Amino acid sequence: MTGTLETLSAIEEIRRLKARYFRLMDMKDWSGFAEIFTEDAIFDVLDALEENPDPAAAQPPVIGRAAIVDYVSTGIAPITSAHYGHMPEIDILSDDEATGIWAFEDILRLPAGGPFTLFRGHGHYHERYSRADGRWRIASLKITRLMVQMT
Amino acid sequence: MTGTLETLSAIEEIRRLKARYFRLMDMKDWSGFAEIFTEDAIFDVLDALEENPDPAAAQPPVIGRAAIVDYVSTGIAPITSAHYGHMPEIDILSDDEATGIWAFEDILRLPAGGPFTLFRGHGHYHERYSRADGRWRIASLKITRLMVQMT
Amino acid sequence: MTGTLETLSAIEEIRRLKARYFRLMDMKDWSGFAEIFTEDAIFDVLDALEENPDPAAAQPPVIGRAAIVDYVSTGIAPITSAHYGHMPEIDILSDDEATGIWAFEDILRLPAGGPFTLFRGHGHYHERYSRADGRWRIASLKITRLMVQMT
Repeated sequence: MTGTLETLSAIEEIRRLKARYFRLMDMKDWSGFAEIFTEDAIFDVLDALEENPDPAAAQPPVIGRAAIVDYVSTGIAPITSAHYGHMPEIDILSDDEATGIWAFEDILRLPAGGPFTLFRGHGHYHERYSRADGRWRIASLKITRLMVQMT
Repeated sequence: MTGTLETLSAIEEIRRLKARYFRLMDMKDWSGFAEIFTEDAIFDVLDALEENPDPAAAQPPVIGRAAIVDYVSTGIAPITSAHYGHMPEIDILSDDEATGIWAFEDILRLPAGGPFTLFRGHGHYHERYSRADGRWRIASLKITRLMVQMT
Repeated sequence: MTGTLETLSAIEEIRRLKARYFRLMDMKDWSGFAEIFTEDAIFDVLDALEENPDPAAAQPPVIGRAAIVDYVSTGIAPITSAHYGHMPEIDILSDDEATGIWAFEDILRLPAGGPFTLFRGHGHYHERYSRADGRWRIASLKITRLMVQMT
């Protein structure tokens, strides 16, 4: 599946899509961030990691581009963040469908006064992409976590 | 060497091979992990870093797929790990031989009761790959370390 | 812009150029490091991050390959470092001009006796590349920082 020019080009375009996802989130560029997702995208980042005390972990996924941007921008507003995606494994399924797995790290500095001020997490994104009008977007993403550190 | 479709495809396949190496190790998927290596692979991860107190650092490399899987799965069993490979420099030498250098980080959370509970290491993998039956595998790898932090 | 073999090859060559930039810096290989830059390269790494107490932050960029190597090699001599570049967004503008954005992390261990011994930084490189004699080099780079941690 990696042997054609069309496939290699699609893989590179999806790598860039995910690079923008992380960069625009950390830059808090929410109009650019919205363009990353399909209108009906599914965003499921609340992994029920045993050690993760987040009570929101039982919440359902966020559905739809507008709701995703609202959810992420509200959540990250008080936080300084650096998100990294590593070592993508991207499968181009057809001209307009693909899947990908990315290892990730998220480093979050929270405002003083909370139970911790620095969060560092590790895990994987499991994603589907779709292409419309010549442009790849994230159609769904789900996070699974390996480990978190809070100090 | 990066100018042909065959070369670019081989580079992408080797990037994915190494992505699976890291992901399957962190997921403790040992049957999948075995498939990463040639039958006679050489696995040399015991760098004699001056600051590394590991007495195993003087041990010889592990030889052979079965011994590698046994060595890694035993060592990592009590550990929660996140391994990342960054910025590969891959040279395709022929249709079935390649070399690569990867920067890496390894974040290891050890069980309580030891001299430290969190290990973070930095360094490089120096690797050879070979292709058989249309599939790239790791034929040898050697780690050199820049720095470790233990807390 | 990612659809041709020439473009994909140039992107891969620039990924490797930046991989060498980070690896040769961390290995303190200054003759190899010099080859990364054009003769008249611009090197601007002093971002005026509010929380960064570095008084050098008001200094002008370093201009020219020889001055860059002198600046970096002198600054990093007493430091053990691990630098990582992530998720490049590379635009090939012509046969010999390109731009790129890289997320980065820099982990620096400083000698004992200073105000801190471990520095971890996060941000982005904004770069221009040019190709001469078939070889891409960095023509300018500028760092912007998201966050730093000092312990």
